Amino acid sequence: MPEKFVVVGAGPVGSLAALYAAVRGHHVEIYELRPDPRDPKSTPLNDGKSINLALSERGINSLRETGLSDIVDLILGETFPMHGRMIHVTKLGKYVREAQMYDARGKSLLALDRVRLNKILLDHLSTLPNVEFFFNYKLVGADFNKKLAWFESHGPSDPPRGPEIEIPFDFLIGADGAHSSVRYHLMKFVPMSYQQEYIDKLWCQFDVPRSTFSQDFRLPPNYLHIWPQDESMFIALPNLDKTFTATLFLTRSGFEALDASGDVVAYFQSKFPGVVPDLITEDELKKQYANNPHLPLISLKCTPYHHTSTAIIVGDAAHAMVPFYGQGMNAGLEDIRVLFHFLDLYPSDRAQALSSYTAQRTPDASTIADLATLNYREMATDVKSPLYLLRKYTEEKLDLWMPWLGWKTQYSRVTFSNMRYSDVVKASRRQAQILNAVVGVLAAAVVGSGLWFVARGGGERVKMGVMRSICWAARRTQGGIKG
Amino acid sequence: MPEKFVVVGAGPVGSLAALYAAVRGHHVEIYELRPDPRDPKSTPLNDGKSINLALSERGINSLRETGLSDIVDLILGETFPMHGRMIHVTKLGKYVREAQMYDARGKSLLALDRVRLNKILLDHLSTLPNVEFFFNYKLVGADFNKKLAWFESHGPSDPPRGPEIEIPFDFLIGADGAHSSVRYHLMKFVPMSYQQEYIDKLWCQFDVPRSTFSQDFRLPPNYLHIWPQDESMFIALPNLDKTFTATLFLTRSGFEALDASGDVVAYFQSKFPGVVPDLITEDELKKQYANNPHLPLISLKCTPYHHTSTAIIVGDAAHAMVPFYGQGMNAGLEDIRVLFHFLDLYPSDRAQALSSYTAQRTPDASTIADLATLNYREMATDVKSPLYLLRKYTEEKLDLWMPWLGWKTQYSRVTFSNMRYSDVVKASRRQAQILNAVVGVLAAAVVGSGLWFVARGGGERVKMGVMRSICWAARRTQGGIKG
Repeated sequence: MPEKFVVVGAGPVGSLAALYAAVRGHHVEIYELRPDPRDPKSTPLNDGKSINLALSERGINSLRETGLSDIVDLILGETFPMHGRMIHVTKLGKYVREAQMYDARGKSLLALDRVRLNKILLDHLSTLPNVEFFFNYKLVGADFNKKLAWFESHGPSDPPRGPEIEIPFDFLIGADGAHSSVRYHLMKFVPMSYQQEYIDKLWCQFDVPRSTFSQDFRLPPNYLHIWPQDESMFIALPNLDKTFTATLFLTRSGFEALDASGDVVAYFQSKFPGVVPDLITEDELKKQYANNPHLPLISLKCTPYHHTSTAIIVGDAAHAMVPFYGQGMNAGLEDIRVLFHFLDLYPSDRAQALSSYTAQRTPDASTIADLATLNYREMATDVKSPLYLLRKYTEEKLDLWMPWLGWKTQYSRVTFSNMRYSDVVKASRRQAQILNAVVGVLAAAVVGSGLWFVARGGGERVKMGVMRSICWAARRTQGGIKG
Repeated sequence: MPEKFVVVGAGPVGSLAALYAAVRGHHVEIYELRPDPRDPKSTPLNDGKSINLALSERGINSLRETGLSDIVDLILGETFPMHGRMIHVTKLGKYVREAQMYDARGKSLLALDRVRLNKILLDHLSTLPNVEFFFNYKLVGADFNKKLAWFESHGPSDPPRGPEIEIPFDFLIGADGAHSSVRYHLMKFVPMSYQQEYIDKLWCQFDVPRSTFSQDFRLPPNYLHIWPQDESMFIALPNLDKTFTATLFLTRSGFEALDASGDVVAYFQSKFPGVVPDLITEDELKKQYANNPHLPLISLKCTPYHHTSTAIIVGDAAHAMVPFYGQGMNAGLEDIRVLFHFLDLYPSDRAQALSSYTAQRTPDASTIADLATLNYREMATDVKSPLYLLRKYTEEKLDLWMPWLGWKTQYSRVTFSNMRYSDVVKASRRQAQILNAVVGVLAAAVVGSGLWFVARGGGERVKMGVMRSICWAARRTQGGIKG
């Protein structure tokens, strides 16, 4: 039976939720705090700059499950493939670039402009008779028992003004981002466990223009470029218009030191080879560093996501994460696929559907939020390590040469599969145990046979010493290769 | 220089903040969501029921530091002393009551009605020319850089309606409780780490009337009465009018089982001896169980508490805790004393004062929130344990007989001193180490000398076994008496 779905938030996740609801015949109303991003007079979320996302399997799969292949094709047509990372480092005084493919079988991340994705979804929603938009509407209150929400309409000026309207609903979906109002009001009805943490990294965005000579990309385009410097990191993602969008990640005290010294150019030249002046001029770097905001990164988890049968939060409202696994939006889109899977499974018992969703999605969201936080280390440090590369090489070869093993890297399972995030971690742990045991035995055998040869002539004491060394080598090797 | 302080929340903590600000000559405006509790037409916070607080040293000291001894006397005149716990248990089939004094030197908790405390503070504030009240005003937005807050006036009806007003301020103090609006808006300006958790205990309140015959208390009045049943607990605090306010704490599934079976009376009779019908009749128990809400308990922590020099959150808004240490309000009142200590210390640098406050208060608030959660176990289980009583006895005797040692129980330091909460835990850890070492050595000596006597005739092997037993006994004893 068609019902009235109210979706709060018209970003990619809210728009996809509206689409899933609309194709199922529900009447959908979408309320969005900001102006319509398609309105040429509106100031977009990102002040005119592109925010690049890395669309991958989970996101694509969730878009595909709308059944609207035209939309999926339109969106994929706006993407730019990144086959791997390109690491920029200085080795023995020389600037070196190293490509690392993402996947043994050539799968790619797809760079995509958030606003373009959003506009395609909104454009399609606008053609549907059972969908209504309300831009510039702020949620100011909700009663999830009486199924009423209150919104205030307002212009783009701050603070909001305007009459308050009362909107009844059958089901409310909160997709209103990390600072969600829906979550805030839901907490008054639901005993919610909640935690948020700002990590000690701020970010600042930079634009890398096209080459003035060739009018082409200034770097090999099919890569996510990384300048890994442990405490700091600079990355660049390609855009369709042959520019790059680059981001500096740095600790708060690092930014403060740069603010105080004013030596941004010197910092970049010492840390990030090949950036100044090849990608950005000294003047542009200084200007953009000064003008673009230095923004914090939040990681948040909560549970439950729902109240009885009347409301749920999804996307960043439920599990905002740091951007280092490229999964924030993919996980948000996947929320919608999983949510409607359970709604379809229990067509006459939404309370059961929502509690099943919370039960399944809480460990998955918690897992990917943790992986995202840990992955800063992989991007900013491990990618330079021979041990990391050896492990990646070994695992990828196991996948290619012995496909019946079902061996995959954790990165590949997160990015190129739809396996539950919590199952990904379990599978990786099992693999790590096996790999460590095998590598440990091999290393012990190699070290041991060499030492045994040396010790052949020695007495009982020397032989015991050698045995201990072999055991020690086996343990060390297992410790060195992480799970 | 006098400034304009806006205080959000007119509960005990907000009222005390207003008082501290007012006596320093600032112009103070207090905005409160609810109606004036002194208005006879208003529905009080607690629907006419008394919420009993346990006022102790930190709260009294913070009231005293206003310098207004009349107010302190008025408040103390409304309190009822509780010298100790009275434990109600069934032992060998017999109903037994055991008194346990709170303090070796006879210090007491003071039972106090929250509304009475609030009214005394509000009454005094009303007499001050530099204090203005705004009841029925809801904070709907704030800009902590521009120092502007927006409030909506409304009647007691829900949802709120009415014109929005814009209020400029120099300094805003958020004392608006666990579901603080100030904190919600502050989070948009401050990268705040935050966590909240609902523990798996709900509570339901019961009223114990005076004896119909004697018109006196139905239980010895100078105690906090506890029926400890591990998974559940029933407590009763005395009121000035010779009634008791009682509370049932029970897991959510426990409440659901009682709801399903309807067997509240049988449950009370099996678990809480002497309650039905001696304190509450069967009918009253059933009626109150059905009519009084079953409410959750939240524990929350966050940091930082402030934004630059313009705003701070205090009390439950900053660190709501579960009620099992009786410190929630005392910690909130202490916040105000500590806050103004730093404001007085840095009269011309409020940013420094506030960051010093956050730095000092974060570990203290975190500590008492954790202690409060852990103390459920002490109230519901440990009070029945001979080992717990032995330890309490030993520590109290050490304090009394060897006062130069400075030995105190943790409970005593939390409740009857103004030592920083984080220092209390450090002091208790040190004491536990010493006590465990002493007890361990004594126990080992006793066990060991006995065994040695037995083993005198045995060979080397028997003697080694005895040595191991002694070491084992020493370790076990240390493990058994917790820090």
